[in-house]
Amino acid sequence: MNHINFNNIGKICYGRGSYSQLGEILEPRRNDNKGYMVFVVDDYFEDKDFSIPAKGNDLVYYIDGSHEEPKTSLIDDLRDEILSTQGLPAGIVGIGGGSLMDIAKALSLMVTNEGSSVLYQGLNLIKKPGIYHVGVPTISGTGAECSMTAVLSGPEKKLGLKCEWTVFNQVVLDPDLTTTVPTDQWFYTGMDTFIHCIESATGIKYNAFSKAYGDQSLELCREVFLGENAGQNPENDEKLMLASLFGGLSLTYSEVGVCHALSYGLSYVFGTRHGYANCLAFNHLKDIYGEAVDEFHDMVVRFNINLPVNMSAGWTDEEITAMSEIAIRLEHMWNHAFGPGWKDKVDLEYIKGLYRRL
Amino acid sequence: MNHINFNNIGKICYGRGSYSQLGEILEPRRNDNKGYMVFVVDDYFEDKDFSIPAKGNDLVYYIDGSHEEPKTSLIDDLRDEILSTQGLPAGIVGIGGGSLMDIAKALSLMVTNEGSSVLYQGLNLIKKPGIYHVGVPTISGTGAECSMTAVLSGPEKKLGLKCEWTVFNQVVLDPDLTTTVPTDQWFYTGMDTFIHCIESATGIKYNAFSKAYGDQSLELCREVFLGENAGQNPENDEKLMLASLFGGLSLTYSEVGVCHALSYGLSYVFGTRHGYANCLAFNHLKDIYGEAVDEFHDMVVRFNINLPVNMSAGWTDEEITAMSEIAIRLEHMWNHAFGPGWKDKVDLEYIKGLYRRL
Repeated sequence: MNHINFNNIGKICYGRGSYSQLGEILEPRRNDNKGYMVFVVDDYFEDKDFSIPAKGNDLVYYIDGSHEEPKTSLIDDLRDEILSTQGLPAGIVGIGGGSLMDIAKALSLMVTNEGSSVLYQGLNLIKKPGIYHVGVPTISGTGAECSMTAVLSGPEKKLGLKCEWTVFNQVVLDPDLTTTVPTDQWFYTGMDTFIHCIESATGIKYNAFSKAYGDQSLELCREVFLGENAGQNPENDEKLMLASLFGGLSLTYSEVGVCHALSYGLSYVFGTRHGYANCLAFNHLKDIYGEAVDEFHDMVVRFNINLPVNMSAGWTDEEITAMSEIAIRLEHMWNHAFGPGWKDKVDLEYIKGLYRRL
Repeated sequence: MNHINFNNIGKICYGRGSYSQLGEILEPRRNDNKGYMVFVVDDYFEDKDFSIPAKGNDLVYYIDGSHEEPKTSLIDDLRDEILSTQGLPAGIVGIGGGSLMDIAKALSLMVTNEGSSVLYQGLNLIKKPGIYHVGVPTISGTGAECSMTAVLSGPEKKLGLKCEWTVFNQVVLDPDLTTTVPTDQWFYTGMDTFIHCIESATGIKYNAFSKAYGDQSLELCREVFLGENAGQNPENDEKLMLASLFGGLSLTYSEVGVCHALSYGLSYVFGTRHGYANCLAFNHLKDIYGEAVDEFHDMVVRFNINLPVNMSAGWTDEEITAMSEIAIRLEHMWNHAFGPGWKDKVDLEYIKGLYRRL
């Protein structure tokens, strides 16, 4: 097929307070398979006054989502534990940031696909549809709520389980869940969608579909991070949640680029969190992304964000090489950014040079 | 539920030339039920060089889509014929404008729900899920490609079959299919999405979700109908197709208003086509929709569209009353436009007054 035939999120429940409807939404699906739900929840919520609509034999796992992308070993272990104790669940519900979204998506696939998740890192390697899965994002910007990728960090690579079954059957988009996000995390994660849209727009895969979603996402980002009422407030919580969704949908027909390639290397080698790693890289890509990098700098100033400089002085050659080797494997990103002749411009030395800017 | 939990279009294949992939898209679904597809196609395409990927026992119906909304009797007759000759189809594929989209959606539901479609005109009256159905719009603006309504004209009312199963499992959005639409039809149908967005934005149900989609749709409409390169051209065919989709999605969380209520009356009594009926009404609603009506007038001038004036002088009191009685039943539209106290302002006389402006 020349044109992607993409799988949409099955159902969307949007609105402030919509989280309270989660229990009701799950009810009709509770009798599937062994009749219980698995909730994977960011452990930030463990000691908070936060109600999870678990009942009966449901399992609730609180997971630390504050590190880099989830590891394939985490998914494999969790899958084995779930299946061996109660059999195939009726569904998986992820509540949290991008890592928790990815865990929920990956688990929903790995409960029906045998062997380690390492086997399935890549495009369309998954053999069987997964089970019903629901995403409830509690921070905005990752686009993980609509993407067909569950990004995982494996022993050899950081790469997603990417197929049409990865997409959530249901998402609940409640901007009220994002009100307590600390400012720096709010900023870095929000920049993820800003950068998605810029990268989407500056490459060969960009089309009218990507542009319609991307333009609106950028407009919302500008209001949230540079507008008259910039900052964290209920109105902007709504806008940023939609910016994240639209940024993700923009990527459906397009692709990320140089910044994400560099960011993946940083996360893999140093465990740097994705949104923050993006900001570290985007900060130094003015020659590639032009005015968007100036806009980014304005946003950084507006929210007093401290981005470290001269980090690369502390990195060994081995570390820079390791990052560059991760980055150069992401051929689809380089291809999107520079076109089919990208190898004329981009080699390991070029990428090392980009890392040395940081 | 306070917040709508809406069913998305299942899969979307977007892009110029994507129609050529329709056969490939249908292939995996061909073995369902009695293993044949039903194509309902606007009869405009019957004598054109237009390839329909029918095979084997597939049925192809060419249907005149140039009148008002499809009649419940058409749906009932077609359903009876299809079921009695070959049994339950694997799927229904609609190719054409809003009417053909509605026919495909309604048929997909009525092959599994007994009795006349008249029984199901309204919200959530359909009892069983329908069958797999695919929408291929060949004109942009109706939003029928994403809505949960199949609008039908019955013996007593013009009202949709509205439920989550109405939504297409698959749409193919190929802007190249819209290149041959005559200018006036292109204009009237395009205005449908412009008016959707204006009505969506000026009522009590409007929210950030509706606004994000509606703002982008309006932006695209402005480029297509008032921009530097306004008019029918390949770039604008792409933009208008997305404007239509986004306008429809804006309505998911919002509602149409006064213009659509009046338009339904016109279509019901005089058989006026939907997009044209909208334009006839919107033309005279400056006191309600303000500057948007000025913008509409600019677009009318730009494309030399002749909208009749003083039509109401030729209407009988009975006709005006009949239209008003249709319009006033659309309580959800008046409620959205004027709020829960709408009955203080809107009664049959008020609506007759609106029709007499035309």
